[in-house]
Amino acid sequence: MKGKLYGIGVGPGDPELVTLKAMKVIEKVPVIAVPKSKKEGESIVLDIAERYIDRTRQEIIEWVFPMIQDEEKLRAFWMVAVNQILKRLGEGKDVAYLCLGDPLLYSTFCYLFLMIREDHPDVTIEVIPGVSSITSVAASAGIPLAIGQERLALLSATSDLNILKEISERFDTIIVMKVNRCMDRVIAILEEIGLKDRAVFVSRAGWEEEEVVYDLDSLKGRELDYFSMVIVKN
Amino acid sequence: MKGKLYGIGVGPGDPELVTLKAMKVIEKVPVIAVPKSKKEGESIVLDIAERYIDRTRQEIIEWVFPMIQDEEKLRAFWMVAVNQILKRLGEGKDVAYLCLGDPLLYSTFCYLFLMIREDHPDVTIEVIPGVSSITSVAASAGIPLAIGQERLALLSATSDLNILKEISERFDTIIVMKVNRCMDRVIAILEEIGLKDRAVFVSRAGWEEEEVVYDLDSLKGRELDYFSMVIVKN
Repeated sequence: MKGKLYGIGVGPGDPELVTLKAMKVIEKVPVIAVPKSKKEGESIVLDIAERYIDRTRQEIIEWVFPMIQDEEKLRAFWMVAVNQILKRLGEGKDVAYLCLGDPLLYSTFCYLFLMIREDHPDVTIEVIPGVSSITSVAASAGIPLAIGQERLALLSATSDLNILKEISERFDTIIVMKVNRCMDRVIAILEEIGLKDRAVFVSRAGWEEEEVVYDLDSLKGRELDYFSMVIVKN
Repeated sequence: MKGKLYGIGVGPGDPELVTLKAMKVIEKVPVIAVPKSKKEGESIVLDIAERYIDRTRQEIIEWVFPMIQDEEKLRAFWMVAVNQILKRLGEGKDVAYLCLGDPLLYSTFCYLFLMIREDHPDVTIEVIPGVSSITSVAASAGIPLAIGQERLALLSATSDLNILKEISERFDTIIVMKVNRCMDRVIAILEEIGLKDRAVFVSRAGWEEEEVVYDLDSLKGRELDYFSMVIVKN
């Protein structure tokens, strides 16, 4: 394959948290590929990168990825993306796939990366790491994630949350990602294991709309932002 | 306190992985504070940031932090750093403390941050997150750290490594940091729990001297770089 695929992390939301390397690649590639989560909604990633893009000479491919768990439907969506990218690469054009945070930590790029590497091993892929949402959240909450010999666990609230009971004593810090749709259950389990008062909720860390909440009970029943997580300090 | 303290992550090593925000603050503050690990050695952090610093108008404070575990001796070292920083802040000068990777993830800044926040709550501290070494290592090794509902654990090899036996089945990815001085023991435990062949060793990810090693046995008895870690995929 003649073109090169870049997986680029544009950081957690603040456009100033883009790296110089990401900025330079975004400015130079002929094709920019970005995921959107809702058909009507603007792409957050594109909002961040827009200032480095010149639409008169760069093509932008946008996809609407559904927030679903069904593996087969997801794969069908990804096939469309993969084929559009392969077409540009075949024409000798470099493609930059942009994602929030870091490309290899809870990002849509992971799916694309694994599919292309498996089915098209001739494609050259370069991953440009970005500032992850987890360190941005730590900065907003003023909480060191790990010091010296400490241990840190990252979990998704959409996985079996009983894991919290099993591992809480073995880790100094636990970050529960994607809490927006199951915050009540997260609160209940943290209360059960006596860690509710050692938890902080953060949404949209580093953005204008940032919210840091120490009284978790006040979140019960509320509609929460997709970019929300909870940090628990043991 | 009149001056402001910044904790700035300059990323994992590649000077191009500095964020725009970090660059701008480094350029403007009157005082730059940087840790060194060896008295003779150059500061890696300063090497990265040097291009944004003008020594004719900016003061650089460097400290040699000993690689020791003794809490009391470490605290004595930190007190010197804290006092030098407080002196500048008192003069109304902003101080930027630079660190590799991210300031709140296994960084020397964590100690400074906690000490100043506890003893001098009047000091304004802003943390500017940086690209962490863990995502840089993932990019070098070509390994997604977490996808969808997956779980990630970060451990220090200097802590009790029996934890690996206890948690390995509950996490999709495990990163063992600081393996340089106990690689033989890490290899032995990974072999014992049947994960040796699913582990990758990476040192100085993204640097010129980067090394990615899949055959862990080949590392036995070797002197390893301080910036080394192992990623285990379950």
